Amino acid sequence: MQFKVNSKELEKLLTKIIPAVPSRTPMPILENFLFEIKDGLLTIYATDLEISLKSSLNIVAEENMSFVVHAKLLYDVVRSLKETTINFEIESNGKLFLSTDSGKYTLSYLESDEYPEIPNFPGDKADEELKEISINGSELKFTFDKTSFAMSKEEMRPAMMGTLANFSNGGLRVVATDGHRLVNLLLTNIKTDFEEQYIIPERAISVLSKILDEKDVKIYLSKSHISFSLNDIELITRLIGQKYPDYSAVIPLENEFLLTVKLKEIHDAIKRMMLFSATNTRRVKFSIDENNLEISAEDLDIGASGTENIECTYQGDKIEIGFNSSYVNDILSHIGSEEEIVFKLHSPTKAVIVVPAKTSEKHDLMMLLMPVRLNN
Amino acid sequence: MQFKVNSKELEKLLTKIIPAVPSRTPMPILENFLFEIKDGLLTIYATDLEISLKSSLNIVAEENMSFVVHAKLLYDVVRSLKETTINFEIESNGKLFLSTDSGKYTLSYLESDEYPEIPNFPGDKADEELKEISINGSELKFTFDKTSFAMSKEEMRPAMMGTLANFSNGGLRVVATDGHRLVNLLLTNIKTDFEEQYIIPERAISVLSKILDEKDVKIYLSKSHISFSLNDIELITRLIGQKYPDYSAVIPLENEFLLTVKLKEIHDAIKRMMLFSATNTRRVKFSIDENNLEISAEDLDIGASGTENIECTYQGDKIEIGFNSSYVNDILSHIGSEEEIVFKLHSPTKAVIVVPAKTSEKHDLMMLLMPVRLNN
Repeated sequence: MQFKVNSKELEKLLTKIIPAVPSRTPMPILENFLFEIKDGLLTIYATDLEISLKSSLNIVAEENMSFVVHAKLLYDVVRSLKETTINFEIESNGKLFLSTDSGKYTLSYLESDEYPEIPNFPGDKADEELKEISINGSELKFTFDKTSFAMSKEEMRPAMMGTLANFSNGGLRVVATDGHRLVNLLLTNIKTDFEEQYIIPERAISVLSKILDEKDVKIYLSKSHISFSLNDIELITRLIGQKYPDYSAVIPLENEFLLTVKLKEIHDAIKRMMLFSATNTRRVKFSIDENNLEISAEDLDIGASGTENIECTYQGDKIEIGFNSSYVNDILSHIGSEEEIVFKLHSPTKAVIVVPAKTSEKHDLMMLLMPVRLNN
Repeated sequence: MQFKVNSKELEKLLTKIIPAVPSRTPMPILENFLFEIKDGLLTIYATDLEISLKSSLNIVAEENMSFVVHAKLLYDVVRSLKETTINFEIESNGKLFLSTDSGKYTLSYLESDEYPEIPNFPGDKADEELKEISINGSELKFTFDKTSFAMSKEEMRPAMMGTLANFSNGGLRVVATDGHRLVNLLLTNIKTDFEEQYIIPERAISVLSKILDEKDVKIYLSKSHISFSLNDIELITRLIGQKYPDYSAVIPLENEFLLTVKLKEIHDAIKRMMLFSATNTRRVKFSIDENNLEISAEDLDIGASGTENIECTYQGDKIEIGFNSSYVNDILSHIGSEEEIVFKLHSPTKAVIVVPAKTSEKHDLMMLLMPVRLNN
């Protein structure tokens, strides 16, 4: 059994699929690609059992076949070749022969039935009701860029290790939080005639963010899986089957003190104050008064401290409030390229809301930051 | 006591000096910069006791002073500032106050007498005879690029952990070897009226390689130290006070079999064969016959093997010889942008010489590669 493929076309295909190959796994079979050839169409799969990627390519092959081959070795060999035709030859002794004009390479292969089953989607779940929606790739990328940093890394609360996507006729609401900060983004132009919540795991979002482009993405949703069909690649991921915490309960409704400040100015100051904040608490203090925001930090261990004064507009009572400087930095890094942002405050112990000063027609972005206690 | 300095000028200066600050050291004092102000000239020093860097800047200061301050913290603060004037204020309580238009920062400082002494060079060794020579910066960088990769990393033979510089009226000969491969570069246009050998440690070369530009470098040599004065920065390093092994004894004189091959072609093939060479031996086999070089490798553990055929010109007996593929790759990566290279061989157990096919007027480059045993 044999087939031919152009080395650069195969490289392009493998480059798209390899992100789903786990770098460390207790199941060595997952370190492989699954090759499937059917009627002249080569489809390559990879999976870590949570997400799977597949993509296809038309090739010259006379027979149908499938086999499993070590992903990294094959990928490294293929991308080290200049543009040429690779002839694949599958022998019955478990050997896969690759040959080009000038080189011959032997790799081992395994039978495809040793490879885990990959959900065919939509397809074999024909009896289950599937939701279907199309979202622009750039908009999806924007959404993940704004929200995914706030997901939790702690396995204690699995739901928070994913990002919530809440579809409704009022728009698509996307929420991520780790309990210290929260992002709540409403995409007002993505309206659906159904109302449903899904929690997408972190790895799916991180792989998707790398492969999304400006083209539309077709999304299929079942109770247990979500699939994203891009132009020439499909990602399927398990959903997190947990209840997402009631985030709306922590969003304060009446934070009446408003601090308006230039994003770049406060961000630069926070980056400097991170250098002075104590390694264990990362704490910075905001002291806010009329027209002045003072940010300060100290690290008693190394006898260093810093203070920054930033011009601002402030409507509210004089207040001193502490934050974890890394979380402030995360929020300022992801809130966008807005010129001005608004902090909405109430008291030193109540959650603070951060929003862009200018509202957008297409989306409504709100970030939330929990304060930390000030000792003095 | 106080002085003022432009933030961007100070950043530029610190960027040059910080490479000498050790990232890990049992002597915390070395994690600091030494600041010395004398008659309006600020000189900043850093050292790891082996190499030291210093550079100067004219500033506005009314008094002379010196102090020691944490290098990384100061550097991070200074480079996080936009262009502004920084006012330094040294208090007698061990506190250093930095202030700008919008921020105030407190750091700790130590007295300068806690800092190790840095050789003043040339200067306080006036009684010792100093050699002096000037070399173009690009030429020095070329020299280190070609040779330094071959230095040994094994502490058993300290001399080989450095690069040999042999000055004579025949030219400057630079040699590096770890016993498996050797580079021997003669710079025919750098003639001196003295004959002397020096061994320069790896760290000095690695730091120098980063800061060298096309300008001339003034070099001072004593028995124990070498100093490199660039345009605005000076590097002083201890020399390795050992005898360099007699490398000329291992260079074969009569390797009469000549293999001429295109550099890019053999290099691409070697990179692919590295993927197939066994992880423990890294072995590749060269089978050379008239007009054909076959390179092959196999990794029995993963059941993979590869063979490449490369066009060549060969004058000599049919030969099979083994090499460590990483060492072949190192040599091919550093031999330059030559179109063709020549392997000079004699037998499967004798060192192989690799040279560019075209000779240069300015330098004479020779690399040497020890073969490894082939089992079959």
